[in-house]
Amino acid sequence: MSGNYKLLDGINSPEDLKKLKLDDLELLSTELRQFIIDVVSTNPGHFGASLGVVELTVALHYVFNTPYDRIIWDVGHQAYGHKILTGRKDVFHTNRKYKGISGFPKREESPYDAFGVGHSSTSISAALGMSIASGMKMEPRQVVAVIGDGALTGGMAFEGLNHGGSIKSNLLVILNDNNISIDPSVGALKEYLLDITTSKTYNKLKTEVWDLLGKIDKLAPKTRSVIQKMENAVKAALLKQSNMFESMGFRYFGPVDGHDVVYLAKVLDDLKDIPGPKLLHCITVKGKGYSPAEENQTMFHAPGLFNKTTGERIVVTSDKPTPPKYQDVFGETLVELAEKNDKIVGITPAMASGCSMNILMEKMPKKAFDVGIAEQHAVTFSAGLAAEGLVPFCNIYSTFMQRAYDQVIHDVALQNLQVVFCLDRGGLVGDDGATHHGAFDIAYMRSIPNITVTAPMNEEELRNMMYTAQLEGMGPFSIRYPRGNGVMVDWRKPFKKLEIGKANVLRNGNDIAILTIGHIGNLAAKAADMLEADGISVYHADMRFVKPIDTDVLKFVGENFKTVVTVEDGCLPGGFGSAALEWLNDAGYAIRVIRLGIPDSFIEHGTQQQLYADCGYDIENIYQTAKMYSPKKVNMRVS
Amino acid sequence: MSGNYKLLDGINSPEDLKKLKLDDLELLSTELRQFIIDVVSTNPGHFGASLGVVELTVALHYVFNTPYDRIIWDVGHQAYGHKILTGRKDVFHTNRKYKGISGFPKREESPYDAFGVGHSSTSISAALGMSIASGMKMEPRQVVAVIGDGALTGGMAFEGLNHGGSIKSNLLVILNDNNISIDPSVGALKEYLLDITTSKTYNKLKTEVWDLLGKIDKLAPKTRSVIQKMENAVKAALLKQSNMFESMGFRYFGPVDGHDVVYLAKVLDDLKDIPGPKLLHCITVKGKGYSPAEENQTMFHAPGLFNKTTGERIVVTSDKPTPPKYQDVFGETLVELAEKNDKIVGITPAMASGCSMNILMEKMPKKAFDVGIAEQHAVTFSAGLAAEGLVPFCNIYSTFMQRAYDQVIHDVALQNLQVVFCLDRGGLVGDDGATHHGAFDIAYMRSIPNITVTAPMNEEELRNMMYTAQLEGMGPFSIRYPRGNGVMVDWRKPFKKLEIGKANVLRNGNDIAILTIGHIGNLAAKAADMLEADGISVYHADMRFVKPIDTDVLKFVGENFKTVVTVEDGCLPGGFGSAALEWLNDAGYAIRVIRLGIPDSFIEHGTQQQLYADCGYDIENIYQTAKMYSPKKVNMRVS
Repeated sequence: MSGNYKLLDGINSPEDLKKLKLDDLELLSTELRQFIIDVVSTNPGHFGASLGVVELTVALHYVFNTPYDRIIWDVGHQAYGHKILTGRKDVFHTNRKYKGISGFPKREESPYDAFGVGHSSTSISAALGMSIASGMKMEPRQVVAVIGDGALTGGMAFEGLNHGGSIKSNLLVILNDNNISIDPSVGALKEYLLDITTSKTYNKLKTEVWDLLGKIDKLAPKTRSVIQKMENAVKAALLKQSNMFESMGFRYFGPVDGHDVVYLAKVLDDLKDIPGPKLLHCITVKGKGYSPAEENQTMFHAPGLFNKTTGERIVVTSDKPTPPKYQDVFGETLVELAEKNDKIVGITPAMASGCSMNILMEKMPKKAFDVGIAEQHAVTFSAGLAAEGLVPFCNIYSTFMQRAYDQVIHDVALQNLQVVFCLDRGGLVGDDGATHHGAFDIAYMRSIPNITVTAPMNEEELRNMMYTAQLEGMGPFSIRYPRGNGVMVDWRKPFKKLEIGKANVLRNGNDIAILTIGHIGNLAAKAADMLEADGISVYHADMRFVKPIDTDVLKFVGENFKTVVTVEDGCLPGGFGSAALEWLNDAGYAIRVIRLGIPDSFIEHGTQQQLYADCGYDIENIYQTAKMYSPKKVNMRVS
Repeated sequence: MSGNYKLLDGINSPEDLKKLKLDDLELLSTELRQFIIDVVSTNPGHFGASLGVVELTVALHYVFNTPYDRIIWDVGHQAYGHKILTGRKDVFHTNRKYKGISGFPKREESPYDAFGVGHSSTSISAALGMSIASGMKMEPRQVVAVIGDGALTGGMAFEGLNHGGSIKSNLLVILNDNNISIDPSVGALKEYLLDITTSKTYNKLKTEVWDLLGKIDKLAPKTRSVIQKMENAVKAALLKQSNMFESMGFRYFGPVDGHDVVYLAKVLDDLKDIPGPKLLHCITVKGKGYSPAEENQTMFHAPGLFNKTTGERIVVTSDKPTPPKYQDVFGETLVELAEKNDKIVGITPAMASGCSMNILMEKMPKKAFDVGIAEQHAVTFSAGLAAEGLVPFCNIYSTFMQRAYDQVIHDVALQNLQVVFCLDRGGLVGDDGATHHGAFDIAYMRSIPNITVTAPMNEEELRNMMYTAQLEGMGPFSIRYPRGNGVMVDWRKPFKKLEIGKANVLRNGNDIAILTIGHIGNLAAKAADMLEADGISVYHADMRFVKPIDTDVLKFVGENFKTVVTVEDGCLPGGFGSAALEWLNDAGYAIRVIRLGIPDSFIEHGTQQQLYADCGYDIENIYQTAKMYSPKKVNMRVS
């Protein structure tokens, strides 16, 4: 992609950028934007967010002395421009690819990535720590957190502001506000504050107002009490105590146009010299500069392949009917169930389109709640709904449910409330990588008393699990399923109640036993086909339930096999295999349990298939492992 | 305790309370306060918080139609008055005792306990869910969340406000502000808002101000632009958009005197008729009405036994020197280490005295950070400090660390940062009960890659673990220890580096093997004494490390024993015993692992000893279990 950009081609680090004149920044921004469009249209990734902060990115690296100064990008999917300007332009085409650069800032990847991100709302806390450390180490560096208005709804961002505002640390928070509808409840003060804070006339104005108040005081005495009250209000506003951020001890600046790169550079340069915690409110447009993305911000958040000229998405279609995404099965099924059971409501923390709860939102808007990026609240809010007899389906990605672990334990399970947790993106998610894999949920959920922990193997099971979970008398219920497509074309079967704690025995052979949980059972089923082709007779149970686990199946396996292979798309320490092992051991069976799953390390990005193979539970690995432990090893298959 | 209170004796439910005249409420409040003093002085529990809300409690139950209307007490240690007025006066002396009533509101215990609590900052989320459910079910009930100013610093409270303010649900949040220093950054507006919101003159004043602005406009034209800006500010204030809660969509009322019960009852009655989300700011004094508690609020938060006449605490002393609390060992050791290593800093989320980090705060105030009730921020803030090369000791109770699980995974472990997590109150905590037991941390920590997971057996090991954790080159490190006293009188030994992943073999016998983790090893050591007295030769390893686990010890045990007993003060599913079992199974040892620990259920309150016995891992149970599986069963001991 190099060779086409007059300025960008010469920029291999912020050092190069700093050599440009202020007037060059606009062209550079245009080129950087075009570079992102060029690369991301052919190499899918996040898109709109990075386009929206092109000017901010250029201005930040122009003004601040990175990497000595620290920039922390909240969530990080807006940091493509940052990566490109900090020495990764030539490898940017490997973004999110197996062994390529990460889609998120990552400390190991570059000294410019001051703090690894992926989950939302962490930047203020991290920046505050870094800023305080800088003070303690007498290293007068600037620390900047760039956070979106969405991420600001996460409680931990508030915790960070609340702490940051109380200690006089030299921290700059940049609010990247790309919401076209600025929250009207703080809107009335914004214009006022913009003017008094970004101009040099603040002190002059203050004096003028005091003079004026003096004059007012000479008006008729009967209005004096009114005036005093008014004076208090004006004082408060003037002392900038009436803005939400000011209330929390941050000096508030803005809002400013986040696409005026020259002005941004000037403002940032001014802010460098203002001590203490401060917040710059930038208004940006998600997808800025690429009209299809500006017009359809949701689709162009992460559009996949698209024709950069027309903005059309390039969708590979097949003549054959293809299985649906698990997400859509969830979304459609939730509507079907909500139509039958008026107690059902849906809750999502800002993932309505990602998890397909938007289907319920459109069809039954009063039954669906998008609570913002607020997993903790989502769970306890669900508990409150359930305490009054409703049946909330609370859909949270496995990796984000980590953020509501206490609420699952303390507010739902301890009170035995019927909340149905739908853990989307359970297991390895692919391109998003280490921060987003749903590796831990089976382990962390099954430690919790009172909760039914499940993972369906296919679309039909997902539907029946959802149906079963909403039946009267159920307690807390967790259903996890993976990112991506299922395996059934004809998935819209009538609902059937699943028996709690009962597995589905798929094969009843006697050479080797395989127990699987969830969708990964489909790979095991194919491995079983290969084993049978080799003359090895396979017992395969799709366990469905991690907890309560099917003890009849375990007993049968314990009594009839020397070895059992367990397969899960989840972490090995404490996971499903461990649950099976615990029961077999407790029951006194001296059976060897060969556990396949995510090893005890963080897994990078790649396609799901690549990662399953790396982790040792793709079809081939399951086949080889089962074969190795099978007493009847016929001729080794040449793969 | 009955028979002494003119009004309270006749109150067995809010029905009885409602029969009183408004003028009686003051006397009733006095009696309720005295009842709490009488009972809690002889039956220890939380104290100051309940005294502070006596009037609020009386007013709430007088005005609202409980239990049809819902009151949710955040945290819940202030709910003693609520329990006493709602039919639990006669069992209140069993508060926090084994098989007695819980120290916190609990749905199972009473229909008046609308939502179970214990952890902070959950009330707004739960109340919002209940309020919305009430609307959907066409049951026009009032829902009230009572939250302290401390709990309001928890991010999830903000998440709840942010959501609650955006939907027009009929919810009342009562801010129980018992901080003598009201946050000055919102203070400037409070007086103003108090007057315009609680009086009936709001609309009148608004008119007056508009009139006034009209007059000002006639002043010299040169001041017109100033006036316009001022007008905007006044408008904003008048439209109540300048208060932090108003910014989030809540109508703000207050502050009011939380000890004027008659006025409170009137205000609450007025608020019942105001639709939409609203917040009443009550100023209260923690410990109100009992001067020793007002004067020493920290000590009287939960004072233990005390002489109600003099306010002196009754401390049972011993002639013999007693072992220190683990908390104090942590606190003292942290100071010793910080004196040697200037990279060390301490972080606590509002538990400075509980975890004894107040010792560091006093000695080295710049090195210690109390971040408020904000576990998520505490962890990621620590990650930020560590990213800059400092070594943060982040002390969070085991049960509260559940709230920062994602931050441990995503911000610390994934980045392999040297944060030392000190998990205080690991294991069963005793009187605080189900919400507070540190049951899950061994399981949820050991699933996380990169982290060293440990539990010291005694004070010396705790010190050495802390010493080891801060050495250069260590990564994320978790140290868990229990609530209460240790076992060593002479604990202040010189520091020694512990070898990572190495157990301490305490006995080297050959009939039965016992592996323990943490302080519970002391009970196992006593059981081993009893076994040896019976002629059974015991192998006992204090494992020290859950992860990396000592594979030499496991190998030795796997090769030399048919059965091994594991003991942990933590949950069995996925816990330490499971870790040992996983390794032994993976390595191919067909050894039976008998796992003792917290079973898969929520454990109620009682003394730690009572609960260890109930859960099957007190000395006697360990002894009996080990004996049962010992090949050399001599004569059964009569206990």
